[in-house]
Amino acid sequence: MDLLVVGSGLIGTSIGLALRGQLDVALHDPSVAALDVAVDRGAGRRWDGIEPFAHCVVAAPPSAVADVIASLPAGGTFSHVASVQRAVQASLVDAGVDVTAVCGSHPMAGKEQSGPAAASGELFVGRPWVLCPSASTSTTALSAVRQVAEACGAEPVVMSAEEHDAAVALVSHLPQVAASALAAVLGASGGSLALAGPGLQDTTRIAASDPALWVEVLRENASAVAPLVRQLSAELGGAAAALEAGDLGAVEQLLRRGNDGRERVPRKRGELDRDFVPVSVSVPDEPGQLAGVLVSAALAGINVEDVRVEHLPGRPTGVIELLVHLDAQAGARQALAAAGWDVVRA
Amino acid sequence: MDLLVVGSGLIGTSIGLALRGQLDVALHDPSVAALDVAVDRGAGRRWDGIEPFAHCVVAAPPSAVADVIASLPAGGTFSHVASVQRAVQASLVDAGVDVTAVCGSHPMAGKEQSGPAAASGELFVGRPWVLCPSASTSTTALSAVRQVAEACGAEPVVMSAEEHDAAVALVSHLPQVAASALAAVLGASGGSLALAGPGLQDTTRIAASDPALWVEVLRENASAVAPLVRQLSAELGGAAAALEAGDLGAVEQLLRRGNDGRERVPRKRGELDRDFVPVSVSVPDEPGQLAGVLVSAALAGINVEDVRVEHLPGRPTGVIELLVHLDAQAGARQALAAAGWDVVRA
Repeated sequence: MDLLVVGSGLIGTSIGLALRGQLDVALHDPSVAALDVAVDRGAGRRWDGIEPFAHCVVAAPPSAVADVIASLPAGGTFSHVASVQRAVQASLVDAGVDVTAVCGSHPMAGKEQSGPAAASGELFVGRPWVLCPSASTSTTALSAVRQVAEACGAEPVVMSAEEHDAAVALVSHLPQVAASALAAVLGASGGSLALAGPGLQDTTRIAASDPALWVEVLRENASAVAPLVRQLSAELGGAAAALEAGDLGAVEQLLRRGNDGRERVPRKRGELDRDFVPVSVSVPDEPGQLAGVLVSAALAGINVEDVRVEHLPGRPTGVIELLVHLDAQAGARQALAAAGWDVVRA
Repeated sequence: MDLLVVGSGLIGTSIGLALRGQLDVALHDPSVAALDVAVDRGAGRRWDGIEPFAHCVVAAPPSAVADVIASLPAGGTFSHVASVQRAVQASLVDAGVDVTAVCGSHPMAGKEQSGPAAASGELFVGRPWVLCPSASTSTTALSAVRQVAEACGAEPVVMSAEEHDAAVALVSHLPQVAASALAAVLGASGGSLALAGPGLQDTTRIAASDPALWVEVLRENASAVAPLVRQLSAELGGAAAALEAGDLGAVEQLLRRGNDGRERVPRKRGELDRDFVPVSVSVPDEPGQLAGVLVSAALAGINVEDVRVEHLPGRPTGVIELLVHLDAQAGARQALAAAGWDVVRA
C-alpha cells in the first residue's frame, strides 16, 4: 500500500483521516481499542503485518519510535512525528536502524484532547510541518514525508533536528514553563485573584496544559529548554533586585526589551497593529450577545478582522471588542450604535 | 457644585463623561489643552478656583495626589484614583493633609491610550472600583467616592490599601513583569519565532505595554511586587536546575501546581470549562469570514459563549473556534456545515 501509519492516537488517526480518498492507507496499533476507533472513523484499513508499504509514518511517543521502526519490515521509507527530534535521531542510531531510510518530522498541530476519538482530518491544514532530515536521510525518505505533509494540507518547513529543538524550546517549551511557574506562584500566594483581568487570564492560559504530556516533552528537550528557563529566571531575579534597590531604570530597560521581544512574535500580518483598531461594545452577559453584535457588523458590511470577548468575572456585563481596519472604525461605530448596540465611547 | 474633578486625563475625563446628566461636575487641570478637550467633550464645566465642592476626585499621577489636595480649599471631601494606594496614603500624611476627608480609590479600568481624547463615559461600566479608606477616613468621604463609583456604573469593593496593593501586585504587576521578561528572553535569543502559535502570543501579549507608565506603577508598589518576582524567579531557577539534573518529577510537580494556580484565576462562570465546548471552523484568511460564521451561527439559533480566532502567521487560512454549550455542540456543527462552512471534524 502507499502508506502505513503505526499508532492510532490523535496524530496518526488525524493523518489517516486527512489522506482519505488521496492515498491507500493501512493502520497498525498495539492497542486493539485505539485501532478499532481509528478504523471505524475511516482513517484507514487494518494492516496485516506483512503487506509491504512505500512509506510508514510512526506516530508513537518519542521514546518508542526507534523500537517501532526496528520491529518493522525493511524496504520502505520511514518518518515519525515526534515533538522533539535530536533525542529520536540518536535513539535510531543506537537501535541500529538503517537511518538513510528515516526522516524525522513534526506537525505543529495539536489539541488539548488526545486519542483517535479526538482526531480530525483538518488538524494540519495551514499548519507548519517541520521536516528534520539527518545528514544520512535519503532524498527518497525526505520527499515521502514531504508528500504526506502536503497531502494533509500542512506547510512543510525543512530544519535540522537541532534547529527544530531550539525553535520549539523557545516558542513552545519556555512559554509553557513560564506560564506554569507564574500560575504556581499565584496558587501558592493565597492572595485574592478577584481583581484579575484579561492580562492574567492570557498569561496563565496554557498553565492548564496536561502535566503528564508536557513532562515527556520537557524531558526529551531538557538541554535546549534549561538554558532558556535559567535565563528567564535570571531576568526576573534581576528585576526583583532592581525593584528592591529602587533601580527603576533597570526595570524600565526590561520593559523596553520586552516591547522589542514582543514585536518579534509573529502576528497575522506585519501591519496588523498599525492598521487595525478596536471598536468596543458593552453588552449584558447573556447568551446571543456576541452573535448579535457580529450579525449587526456583518449586515452593515463591516469586515471584522478579529474579536475579543472580555467577561467581567462575577459581573453581569461584558465588553466585546471588534478589530476593524482604521478606515472602517468611524463607520463601524456609527453602524453598531444605529443597530442599537451600546458602543463604548472612544 | 456636586463634584470637582481635578485632572483631565483618561480617567478624570471619563468620570466626567460618565456622570453627565447625573451630577453637576466642574473640571480643573493645570494643562489648558487637556482641560479644553475635556470641556469640549462635555465632561463638565470649567472650575473657577473658588466655587465650593461637596467632593473632589483627584485624577492625577500617584506622586502628585498629596500636593494637589493640599493646594485645594478645604471643606469638602476628597478621593483619588491612584493605581497604588499605600504610597499615596503615606504621602498624604507627610503633606499634612486632613486625612479624615480623604478616601483612596482605584477603578480597575484602563486603556492602551491615554489623555482626554481617549476617555469614555463607559470605561467603568461593570468594572470593580476598589475603595481604600484609611483608618482615619470619615464615613462621609467613603460614601462620597462610593457614590461616584456607582454613578459611573462600576462595582465598588472595599479593601485596605495593603490589601489593594497586594492584590494588584499579584493579578496585574507580577504578570506584567513576567510577560516582559519572557518577551525579553525571546528578543535576546536571536532564534527563529516562525513556529510560534497561540501559546506564545497569549503569554507575551501584555509585554507590549507602555514602559513609561508601568515603571511608575512598579516604583510605587515595588515592596509588594519584588517578593513575588523573586518567588517566580526562584520557581524558574528550580525548574532549570531540575531540567539540568534530569529530575523530571520536580518539573511535573511544577506543572501540576501551575494547573492548580490556573484553576484559581476567575473565569466568567465557574462551570465554563465543563459545560462549554469548542466547535471549530476552518476559513480562508479573508475579510468577512468571522462575521460570516457568526451570522450563520446566529441564524441557526446557536448561542455562542465565546469566540477565538487563530490566524496562522504568514499562511492563507485560519481557524475560528466557537465556544458553545455542550448540549448545543452537535447541532452547531450540523448547522454550520449545512450553511457551507468547513467545520473541523471533531
